[in-house]
Amino acid sequence: MHLGAFLFNLGNHAAGWRMPDVPTEGLMAFDFYRNLAETAERGKFDLVFHSDGLGINDTYDAVLRHTVTIRPEPLTLLSALAVVTQRVGLAATISTTYNEPYHIARKLGMLDFLSNGRAALNLVTSSTDQEAQNFGLSHHLAHGARYERAREFIDILRLLWDSWDDKALSFDKVSGQVADPALIQAIHYKGKYLSVRGPLNMPRPPQGHPVIIQAGVSADGQDFAAHVADVVFSVERSLASAQAFYAAAQTRVTAAGRIPGVMKVMPGLLPIIGRTQEEAESKDRALQDLVPESLAVSYLSDVVQHDLSRYPIDGQLPELPESNGEMGRRQIILDQARLPGATIRSLAVQMVQNRGHLRVVGTARTIANFMAEWFTNNACDGFNILAPFHPGGLAEFVDEVVPELQHRGLFRQEYSGRTLRDHLGLARP
Amino acid sequence: MHLGAFLFNLGNHAAGWRMPDVPTEGLMAFDFYRNLAETAERGKFDLVFHSDGLGINDTYDAVLRHTVTIRPEPLTLLSALAVVTQRVGLAATISTTYNEPYHIARKLGMLDFLSNGRAALNLVTSSTDQEAQNFGLSHHLAHGARYERAREFIDILRLLWDSWDDKALSFDKVSGQVADPALIQAIHYKGKYLSVRGPLNMPRPPQGHPVIIQAGVSADGQDFAAHVADVVFSVERSLASAQAFYAAAQTRVTAAGRIPGVMKVMPGLLPIIGRTQEEAESKDRALQDLVPESLAVSYLSDVVQHDLSRYPIDGQLPELPESNGEMGRRQIILDQARLPGATIRSLAVQMVQNRGHLRVVGTARTIANFMAEWFTNNACDGFNILAPFHPGGLAEFVDEVVPELQHRGLFRQEYSGRTLRDHLGLARP
Repeated sequence: MHLGAFLFNLGNHAAGWRMPDVPTEGLMAFDFYRNLAETAERGKFDLVFHSDGLGINDTYDAVLRHTVTIRPEPLTLLSALAVVTQRVGLAATISTTYNEPYHIARKLGMLDFLSNGRAALNLVTSSTDQEAQNFGLSHHLAHGARYERAREFIDILRLLWDSWDDKALSFDKVSGQVADPALIQAIHYKGKYLSVRGPLNMPRPPQGHPVIIQAGVSADGQDFAAHVADVVFSVERSLASAQAFYAAAQTRVTAAGRIPGVMKVMPGLLPIIGRTQEEAESKDRALQDLVPESLAVSYLSDVVQHDLSRYPIDGQLPELPESNGEMGRRQIILDQARLPGATIRSLAVQMVQNRGHLRVVGTARTIANFMAEWFTNNACDGFNILAPFHPGGLAEFVDEVVPELQHRGLFRQEYSGRTLRDHLGLARP
Repeated sequence: MHLGAFLFNLGNHAAGWRMPDVPTEGLMAFDFYRNLAETAERGKFDLVFHSDGLGINDTYDAVLRHTVTIRPEPLTLLSALAVVTQRVGLAATISTTYNEPYHIARKLGMLDFLSNGRAALNLVTSSTDQEAQNFGLSHHLAHGARYERAREFIDILRLLWDSWDDKALSFDKVSGQVADPALIQAIHYKGKYLSVRGPLNMPRPPQGHPVIIQAGVSADGQDFAAHVADVVFSVERSLASAQAFYAAAQTRVTAAGRIPGVMKVMPGLLPIIGRTQEEAESKDRALQDLVPESLAVSYLSDVVQHDLSRYPIDGQLPELPESNGEMGRRQIILDQARLPGATIRSLAVQMVQNRGHLRVVGTARTIANFMAEWFTNNACDGFNILAPFHPGGLAEFVDEVVPELQHRGLFRQEYSGRTLRDHLGLARP
């Protein structure tokens, strides 16, 4: 089983920051993230993920007032974390829509050097007009075009990482030769969206190519992942749907000409852990009660890209207009809205707590059982753990759930390799 | 006196990497840069600079074969160095032409948080077609347009850094308020080249604004610096010209409505240190002899943006066609070419050794005397030290020249403040 820790700043639950032990001044403090990364490494996690976004969501006052809209910048933060960790992988979320591939090839390559082969990038295509407007555009790219650009982007990254042969550098002090020009090649890439000459001004990274993670769950996102992803960060709500997604992913990978199994599927999981089931449920309710109603409705409005504040909160979700924003989580809401008894309030409470991901409430043993069931029944290759609050929620998982998984023989007792590719069982390209 | 250390990878002299003690495998190794940053901090330097470029110079085979064209990425590297240093400032070279200000505001802001107020950016406008072609353009922007864009860029950085009021974050666990929306403002900047909505998704950095360094020495560059720079990294060759530049800089700063003295002028200085004058000169010749003739001519061709290999090497520099590349160092060559006896060979040897900067060859005492003379005669506020080879050349300077400067009362014995603004005597905006 593979495990990732999703470092969504003070915690993945919308009210996580209000828990008594959460040091809110940690939001911009290196030692807070150092603690989290060290905790994940103590738990033998494959990697830590750092989420990102390229703007402030200021559409709804309640979101700006009641949630953490600040996003510590991942490439700089993970580079600093590379210094204080030895084994855990370091994944940066990167928008392919609002970045230039030459910059990203360099920064990810450098993170791979700084960490001796532990770098990964979590590709997203971005989906809000606020982000577009921070980069000189009035509206964001259409959904299909975003993924076309993303394909070009990843093609370019790989060509740039390969533009210096592994043997290009010689540093021969006697002859004065630094590098063999014949082993350094421009790439002359000309696509529909991106053109890059190359070569990269950096030798080939330790992993050859840093690990590629893909987090989109729309049809375009899944197809893109099947072609390029080493890891998929998926959103699943039930064993049956996860099994269907997992089987379909293997089929798509095969259709893309790749070997089944080379793409690891890791759904998000938000664990609420108690010493007893009752304690866990009480903790869950306490967190839920800390979410202001105005925030829950605003948050849901944001995910479905339609202001729901004018509709009765205990009524059904209305018909929604077409949208060009993020598809995956919107579709999850639309699916759930069809279930009996679903109201704006119930959907809002679900979404704001989990951000669409699976929430499992129980003892360390029942959570480990749940994970074992999914893992051994072809629903996934592991999980991305979304601790509800930091650092305590991640420490609880590492100290209580990880030993249960190790005891069942499902998870490593110790790292056997050095690079993130080693942890994931992926060859160096 | 203020001191910066210019970390041009294995050394600032073109043949520095060939010195016996230079660990060439250090080029991509964190510990190599850690050693350099720790050495600069041991020497109480104000800051370390990391140079950068956004492409490989592959016009001349000799440059690709005989020089280090690799550029470790500064923002990631300096973020890692922030963890292992406590006081020294950390300056990243950033192209305003091929970056988006929203990304740079975040990354520099984050470096400022990671380092507790030690971040700086060294703005350059980039000047080669190879760089343009790595970012989807066929040719680089015209010289004047590059500086117009740079002005918009810096305006946007400052507005973004100010978009969260110092008091915007409250993290009130009782009321559930994270931030006060009234203290977070979009910037709605619309310029000729750049449009950015804002706000930044990060609170105000520890320094308010990270320190701005400007390295261009053309007329456009000097005018830009007078408006925005906290530090100017200049290129000077003689006391008289440095004094003229320094006086003109104060005049321009005043004309720009700023207080004279708020902009620190720090020319580059490449020290070749020996226990005796003879030893220093012999070291200087040894370095010079390690530069292949083909490299020297190619390097000069590159700086003047005209292939000189077809001209007699012991003849005069020919008339050069107009160019749209980097102006500053080209002009220095044109000025030197008018001196009696100047040949392509003599100009090439000068340029390849110093990259246009002042080279001072002597004992620690004579080098300190030289620096004292410039500093006390209104030629500069300090120097950027370009050690010819790393790490030994920087360690020599710190161990031998810095004590001479301290002994004369010209340089600090200990840091008195914590932030880079403290070191430079600049207020928090």
